[in-house]
Amino acid sequence: MKKIEHIGIAVRDIEASNNVFKALFGEAHYKIEDVESEGVKTSFFKCGPNKIELLQATHAESPIAKFIEKRGEGIHHIAFAVDNIDAEIERLLGEGFDLIHKTPKAGADNKLIAFLHPKSTNGVLVELCQDA
Amino acid sequence: MKKIEHIGIAVRDIEASNNVFKALFGEAHYKIEDVESEGVKTSFFKCGPNKIELLQATHAESPIAKFIEKRGEGIHHIAFAVDNIDAEIERLLGEGFDLIHKTPKAGADNKLIAFLHPKSTNGVLVELCQDA
Repeated sequence: MKKIEHIGIAVRDIEASNNVFKALFGEAHYKIEDVESEGVKTSFFKCGPNKIELLQATHAESPIAKFIEKRGEGIHHIAFAVDNIDAEIERLLGEGFDLIHKTPKAGADNKLIAFLHPKSTNGVLVELCQDA
Repeated sequence: MKKIEHIGIAVRDIEASNNVFKALFGEAHYKIEDVESEGVKTSFFKCGPNKIELLQATHAESPIAKFIEKRGEGIHHIAFAVDNIDAEIERLLGEGFDLIHKTPKAGADNKLIAFLHPKSTNGVLVELCQDA
């Protein structure tokens, strides 16, 4: 794990939240991206070597819609940057972690990603991500 | 905001969680610290330019005990590094954010800190921190 690549934050209204986080960082988001496979619209903010990803559900079956229904808006996941996602998945499986994706899939922001199940990481949804 | 200084994670049993996060990062925590004023025991892990702070309550009235009672274990807050916490508090008050601390207080890991109220930041508990 090289660094925190980004923090994902579940929001109800990404336009309104873009204004909140622009005021927080003193700088607007640099990118908006729809990830149809996940049912989310995303926006990205830079914070030095890290990013913040806002996530709004695009339909009721989206994982973000379910998260907000259950817990309200808030931090959804932490993504860590890795050099070699296949090797990292292998290593974490060997350590006994429960991975949601045992092979990497395409994610937002031109990344290969894999999620760990939060049950094996104290309730924290952890994402691995490697530049695609 | 210069970078994500750390992510705070609320855990029930910090000894057990130190083992989980050691396995996740491939490296043990570098520090343990009790913050009596907050009723927490903390441990810190490095992840490149960022840190992960595990937080265990030391008594039932600790904010961490209340958080876990309400939501279970998981991500508790995001802390952003700032150069001048007084100026940043001033700027954020001017932007209309609701700050829990309008003057900085001493935090763990030799920092001056101030928290924003999560109601003004989409349910995210945001900490500002400056090297003391």
